[in-house]
Amino acid sequence: MIAPNMATMLAFVGTDARVPADELQASLGWAVERTFNRLSLDACESTNDSVVALATGAGPEVDANALRAGLLEVCAGLATKIARDAEGATKLVRVSVTGARDEEHAVALGRAVAASDLWRAAVHGGDPNWGRVLAAVGSADRNLDLDAVSVSVGGEILFDRGEPVGVLAAAAAAMRDGEFRVELVLGQGHGSAEVLTADLSEEYVTLNAEVTT
Amino acid sequence: MIAPNMATMLAFVGTDARVPADELQASLGWAVERTFNRLSLDACESTNDSVVALATGAGPEVDANALRAGLLEVCAGLATKIARDAEGATKLVRVSVTGARDEEHAVALGRAVAASDLWRAAVHGGDPNWGRVLAAVGSADRNLDLDAVSVSVGGEILFDRGEPVGVLAAAAAAMRDGEFRVELVLGQGHGSAEVLTADLSEEYVTLNAEVTT
Repeated sequence: MIAPNMATMLAFVGTDARVPADELQASLGWAVERTFNRLSLDACESTNDSVVALATGAGPEVDANALRAGLLEVCAGLATKIARDAEGATKLVRVSVTGARDEEHAVALGRAVAASDLWRAAVHGGDPNWGRVLAAVGSADRNLDLDAVSVSVGGEILFDRGEPVGVLAAAAAAMRDGEFRVELVLGQGHGSAEVLTADLSEEYVTLNAEVTT
Repeated sequence: MIAPNMATMLAFVGTDARVPADELQASLGWAVERTFNRLSLDACESTNDSVVALATGAGPEVDANALRAGLLEVCAGLATKIARDAEGATKLVRVSVTGARDEEHAVALGRAVAASDLWRAAVHGGDPNWGRVLAAVGSADRNLDLDAVSVSVGGEILFDRGEPVGVLAAAAAAMRDGEFRVELVLGQGHGSAEVLTADLSEEYVTLNAEVTT
């Protein structure tokens, strides 16, 4: 049950910075939106995920951008650990979307790939199945122009503006690492986002079939 | 890869009725929307599902309602067979939603339950986990009033307007059949729909991890 979107995960972040509560809250929300809320394993949201930031104020004032950068780094690190530690997961997948209409569009398509059981099962099998990536994306965006879309897996371009290209074995080799990136380039605009997911394994099913939560 | 929504399934329906092509097409679309398009196994849509109806015209004219009823019955039968024959599936689940704002709302919530890997894994394990049903529904409808919602599994009411009720063992017994119903009553209006799905098994993952499609 991991796709927080702040919907049983509890995270606490501490700082000694002297920062007004409203600024800390706004900065935390900004960081959470870009990290925890872009983590989708089984796409099943929980009901009481929470991220809390505490500031003692014992330290110096902090520049607003530095605060956001710090929160982003800490939250991204925690979100990555959740993905690595997910039920039955053996591989961390970073779904990177660029060239989307805007950030919201990029997040939606990244989530669609992260939510695809077919693609996540292929990842588990070490199969660089770019067709399953495109099927997930096309299902989420009916107006997609494939002649403008490229897909890379593990740094190898496998589909380039309407045509299959590249060496599947190279992508498959990159997938053997515990972590790899799927890069989706849409050619529509300047929106970009990264969504974290992991493979779908037999162990995930066993864990969730045999244990009541 | 089974969640047709007409997005590799080919279905052909034949009749000897004498019926104009446009009426046959409209009636087929009506029946498909209520059957094939309410089937969601892994929620991964394919790219070229098609349902084609052919009429020889050798028979008599047919009443429009009788034509629709016939097409609905045939399409529902075929959709049910797809669910039973799905990769790794051992149980057919009918997600019935009533009391929704309208039919579209009912379909959306039925699809949300059908798309929940957590719920589908629980089904595989024979666990009447109504909490996973509610989590899926709540994720799809942020404004849900739980005090108006009821959930039954296999004919046993397990959650009734905000309170856990019923006998889990009775629901678990009903789930041992090859087919059972989840009934979700929302108390919001008169919209209703039924969405078909099946359990998520280890075999589904193995099949899709080891075979490139």
